[in-house]
Amino acid sequence: MDYRAPTRDMRFVLTELFDFQAITELPDFSEVSEDLVAAVLEEAGRFTGNVLAPLNKSGDQEGCTWKDGEVTTPAGFRDAYGQYVESGWNSLPCPTEFGGQGLPASLASAVQEMLQASNMSFALGPLLTAGAIEALNNHGSDEQKATYLPKLITGEWSGTMNLTEPQAGSDLAQVRSKAQPNGDHYLLEGQKIFITWGEHDCTENIIHLVLARTPDAPPGVKGISLFIVPKYLVNADGSLGERNDVRCVSIEHKLGIHGSPTCTMAYGDNNGAVGYLVGEEGMGLAYMFTMMNEARHKVGLQGLSIADRAYQQALWYATDRVQGKPLVRHGDEKSIVGHPDVRRMLMTMKTGAEAMRALSYAAAYAMDIAHHHPDAEQRQQAQARVNLLIPIVKGWCTEFGTELTSLGVQVHGGMGFVEETGAAQHYRDAKITTIYEGTTAIQANDLIGRKTFRDQGAAMKALVEEFRADQQALEQAAGDLAPMAEPLGRALDALEQAAEYVATRHGDRPEDTHAASVPYLMLAGYAAGGALMARAALKAKAAMDAGSEEAPFYQAKIVSARFYADHLLPRANGFLPGVLGGGQWCNALTVDQLRHAE
Amino acid sequence: MDYRAPTRDMRFVLTELFDFQAITELPDFSEVSEDLVAAVLEEAGRFTGNVLAPLNKSGDQEGCTWKDGEVTTPAGFRDAYGQYVESGWNSLPCPTEFGGQGLPASLASAVQEMLQASNMSFALGPLLTAGAIEALNNHGSDEQKATYLPKLITGEWSGTMNLTEPQAGSDLAQVRSKAQPNGDHYLLEGQKIFITWGEHDCTENIIHLVLARTPDAPPGVKGISLFIVPKYLVNADGSLGERNDVRCVSIEHKLGIHGSPTCTMAYGDNNGAVGYLVGEEGMGLAYMFTMMNEARHKVGLQGLSIADRAYQQALWYATDRVQGKPLVRHGDEKSIVGHPDVRRMLMTMKTGAEAMRALSYAAAYAMDIAHHHPDAEQRQQAQARVNLLIPIVKGWCTEFGTELTSLGVQVHGGMGFVEETGAAQHYRDAKITTIYEGTTAIQANDLIGRKTFRDQGAAMKALVEEFRADQQALEQAAGDLAPMAEPLGRALDALEQAAEYVATRHGDRPEDTHAASVPYLMLAGYAAGGALMARAALKAKAAMDAGSEEAPFYQAKIVSARFYADHLLPRANGFLPGVLGGGQWCNALTVDQLRHAE
Repeated sequence: MDYRAPTRDMRFVLTELFDFQAITELPDFSEVSEDLVAAVLEEAGRFTGNVLAPLNKSGDQEGCTWKDGEVTTPAGFRDAYGQYVESGWNSLPCPTEFGGQGLPASLASAVQEMLQASNMSFALGPLLTAGAIEALNNHGSDEQKATYLPKLITGEWSGTMNLTEPQAGSDLAQVRSKAQPNGDHYLLEGQKIFITWGEHDCTENIIHLVLARTPDAPPGVKGISLFIVPKYLVNADGSLGERNDVRCVSIEHKLGIHGSPTCTMAYGDNNGAVGYLVGEEGMGLAYMFTMMNEARHKVGLQGLSIADRAYQQALWYATDRVQGKPLVRHGDEKSIVGHPDVRRMLMTMKTGAEAMRALSYAAAYAMDIAHHHPDAEQRQQAQARVNLLIPIVKGWCTEFGTELTSLGVQVHGGMGFVEETGAAQHYRDAKITTIYEGTTAIQANDLIGRKTFRDQGAAMKALVEEFRADQQALEQAAGDLAPMAEPLGRALDALEQAAEYVATRHGDRPEDTHAASVPYLMLAGYAAGGALMARAALKAKAAMDAGSEEAPFYQAKIVSARFYADHLLPRANGFLPGVLGGGQWCNALTVDQLRHAE
Repeated sequence: MDYRAPTRDMRFVLTELFDFQAITELPDFSEVSEDLVAAVLEEAGRFTGNVLAPLNKSGDQEGCTWKDGEVTTPAGFRDAYGQYVESGWNSLPCPTEFGGQGLPASLASAVQEMLQASNMSFALGPLLTAGAIEALNNHGSDEQKATYLPKLITGEWSGTMNLTEPQAGSDLAQVRSKAQPNGDHYLLEGQKIFITWGEHDCTENIIHLVLARTPDAPPGVKGISLFIVPKYLVNADGSLGERNDVRCVSIEHKLGIHGSPTCTMAYGDNNGAVGYLVGEEGMGLAYMFTMMNEARHKVGLQGLSIADRAYQQALWYATDRVQGKPLVRHGDEKSIVGHPDVRRMLMTMKTGAEAMRALSYAAAYAMDIAHHHPDAEQRQQAQARVNLLIPIVKGWCTEFGTELTSLGVQVHGGMGFVEETGAAQHYRDAKITTIYEGTTAIQANDLIGRKTFRDQGAAMKALVEEFRADQQALEQAAGDLAPMAEPLGRALDALEQAAEYVATRHGDRPEDTHAASVPYLMLAGYAAGGALMARAALKAKAAMDAGSEEAPFYQAKIVSARFYADHLLPRANGFLPGVLGGGQWCNALTVDQLRHAE
């Protein structure tokens, strides 16, 4: 199936839904304009549609192969990666100081959506590289930056994140890998699992960022340091030197993302892997969080991306497949797209993707302000918004996106269950997104603890206040928009109540709020998505009132918002009883009672 | 992972939740007793746990193989099938006249749950055989019954349903296979796809039930007849004769149920396949509906089964895996089962399975009354209940069950995405259940048309009235039960409103009610599940008040009901706005507007 980037909706979100002028007025983005946005999206749409999308299914079917420590990616990946580097896509949002293009994170998010939607397995490689760039740019020495950043930014080299060990998954305090000081470097020893793109054949070097303990480091998270471990050591002149003592010892047989090698990496099986300390000893986890926030936002985008890809596949099938007499016809269509329930499924996917797009780009928009606004207070407020939204974008978009891929299979009927069709791949691929870079529960723990309890709900209150303005605008709007005010108001009431519950309970009854955390996160996602859909309808109405020639597009935005308000927004309220009273019933049973009695 | 049948909860539903005495008082079930139920469940639990469950994962990994028209099932399946036949499991609910054991459908449903939970791919074969038995027993001639039923009932022969053709999936009016009269039989020609267990190596004969058109038959559904097409013709003395002209030409490469061969069947490629007309010409589809109702109930049970299997797998992992510090401890557990969100996921799976069990057995209970009660009016009322519940059981349990398998993966974290663990198999297997034997939309169309509009909501009103009694009992109950009355009342209000909407709108605005049909079905499922969970809590409370020695079990039933009321029942109300106003927004956009604008 082809992939066609939703460039019009992307432009709508980037330049109409939010205050685009505020972005163009930032000193670092003086050359950003509507034309530039349109040109980048068009070009990215072409690249992802023509080069990456055609390799998605074949990459799934062929998968990666491991032999003697080497990993071969599926046919076509290596060549496509070369084109990706050559076209400069990797450097889009990167710092100009080291050769990046310095474009806004919001615009880069749209490109990221396309990359992930066209070929999630492929795009995972660059996703990890971006994390390494972020960590090194923030915490590396000048020499480290000069050595590694330029080629990571072009994409000539790739980067990885080496956190997980068999006994240390969500609980990184359990990391056991060791780093022994040895002159100007360290020698690392240990095994890391689930390393995405840990070994592959697309770049000449791979820069591993690895968490390990130095001798006599304190137990727990404060004893963990971050190291650069290049696959090939880099000579003073930048050329590649010796092969380092790090090897991929196996790859996983997974449910999905078969085109993305998930590696078990062995460090220091021979003499010790040469590693260079990043920043200070004991700060490894803190540094990793820098790259994890970036990565979490991108994984949230993956949830949106795979939902939109599944939507396009389902819509294609629905307009092609003839079966039964359609009840709904706008033209002379004879296919199943005229069956009301097929339309309900398609609209769920379409509006779901639109809501996720609005929310995830909103987080990126806040990043742009947080990183580039000249005023410190503005930066701080925007950063608080970023911090609040990241776990919601990651948790909600991946959970919801996964559900939407299931609908994508369903639209195909029996053909959806046959692998040949391609719908099932999205269903399989999607499931990893709720797990890696922190499971949904990890996001929700972050949301209740650091993002709600710590500031006593201030950032959430600010968000709800902003959405109340949308609600009031709906109340005063005419025609199709006004009926959305009431359900949006109810959803925002629920969100306020939930945040209040978390802020007041979390200190004394963490076992209750932890049990309420995922329902709270999901409530926040559906409510925020609903507010942004309503805002989109208001903008669309204004554009139509102003005589836009794109009436069909804007009218569709209003229909999307109404559909969302009826079918998806009420889910927000459905989570409230689980938040307010549910914790008790999660935690009441003994393990014996959880087991089936006989 | 082991499978341990939830025999205690099964006994609870069969003999405590419903009026078990009424079953034992039916003339046909005079020998049914609590002891018999317990003995059958125990024995079935042993067989499914020891023989079928161990083949579930290996069957998935090996899959079926096709060669020159022959299909080989995974290692161990053939031997296990032999044991299945020998132990008499196939004949449990079958008519005694032809060698069946004539046990209640409700008891058989519990055994069916175990079969499907232990090994869904395996149990699909007998599921189809049961459908063939039902169709022949109701519509076959005495000679046909005598020829085919005894060996289908023992399971020595298997049966299939041949409906689908490439152009005729949900719309069976498009069936093109032909049947030409030829003496005492017909000669069939045509291709059928998606034929479950259409060819395999477990039985010496396979009895295909095939839909085809006779010459000069009218177009559409009234021109379709039903034929018996045995793989091997049966001689007058019952011995096997010539190989018939039917062949399996390929099997599908599917997302899941790899152990179940999904066949493309070619009829009459040489001289025509010998087929015997069942009943009258033109009645094929009506007869097929007989077996489809049975099959739909069993597929609903699959949704429950796979959710419970996924739950057991997840609970096992959660009590084994140590990661982080548990907040919740009832004993000295150190594993992730002490994390509140892991508990929330486990409780969602546990209570979801319990609610589905209660509802799907309720439908089987109504079948027992409908088929065996001496009073015609009682039979008729019970049949109306069966008819109403079948689409809800099929649609809701499969949709909900599929979602719960996703939680099962999630509990495992990264290990869930690795195929080796086994959690992913349930996620893959489950997805077929919302599709075959009529997609969720087909069930929902049945629910709004034949089951709600036709009787103007009478059967649904009777069901809600019954649940209102549970609501009132909650209101009058003490302690932990009373708080459930209000949410249950609200869910039942929503169900009434939705049924009223469908009953009044379906005649004039079918495009709206069809768009509302799946939300209405899901609303009904969650509400009915909530009512039965509440009733279970009332029964549990009564048992505890009576001084039962099984307090931990009964207390857990109350906790389950409270959890369901907080976390799952509110979903029912979330579907209401989509039912009442949602149709319009499903159907508003043109196909061009559904496509991404650029």
